[in-house]
Amino acid sequence: MKKINFKNKFQKFTDQWSPKVIAELNDYQFKLVKIQNDFIWHEHNDTDEVFIVMDGEMFIEFEAETIKLEKGEMIVVPKGTKHRPYANDEASIMLVEPRGIVNTGDKIDELTAPNDQWI
Amino acid sequence: MKKINFKNKFQKFTDQWSPKVIAELNDYQFKLVKIQNDFIWHEHNDTDEVFIVMDGEMFIEFEAETIKLEKGEMIVVPKGTKHRPYANDEASIMLVEPRGIVNTGDKIDELTAPNDQWI
Repeated sequence: MKKINFKNKFQKFTDQWSPKVIAELNDYQFKLVKIQNDFIWHEHNDTDEVFIVMDGEMFIEFEAETIKLEKGEMIVVPKGTKHRPYANDEASIMLVEPRGIVNTGDKIDELTAPNDQWI
Repeated sequence: MKKINFKNKFQKFTDQWSPKVIAELNDYQFKLVKIQNDFIWHEHNDTDEVFIVMDGEMFIEFEAETIKLEKGEMIVVPKGTKHRPYANDEASIMLVEPRGIVNTGDKIDELTAPNDQWI
């Protein structure tokens, strides 16, 4: 059994929009990701998705509104909800979602990242 | 859709060892809890459990070792693992676990808290 230090884990990678798995809770994964600039519109048809801002700030554009999230804030994006994350400056984010979820959801894109990249 | 600010949520309660639900991700819950002094030995036979230290520091005693967790650290306690959380000074913790999990696991105790206390 080993504890996980978020700061140490974030120091282990520099690429953006490519989630790294740090822990599993049953069949759910905790992933860290660095984000900057625009992501694509997408949705996850089978699951909700949690975003937690660990450092910096990010935005999530929905069809009806855009929500700004700062360090110390989280949001649950309900399944089937079209959304587009973006950040003006690099932000450090933790995602919580079931194992096997693709970052671009229903879309295949150059931003589609491989799954199960453990750090 | 509403974002959640951890600091604001922690200001909404003062009782200790009584987890408050702030969000659901499918059938999983995110709970905030303030802890201090000793909890009881217990285990969760059907699920892993995540502890994330949001402020302060805590300890989790296992049969073979005691692990200290500080702000910015998390741990996954595997299902069926006997553990005893405690904190010398009050610490602010986020738990992630399936809906319906009782805080004292397999034990009924004066520390057993009601479920689904949303804030």
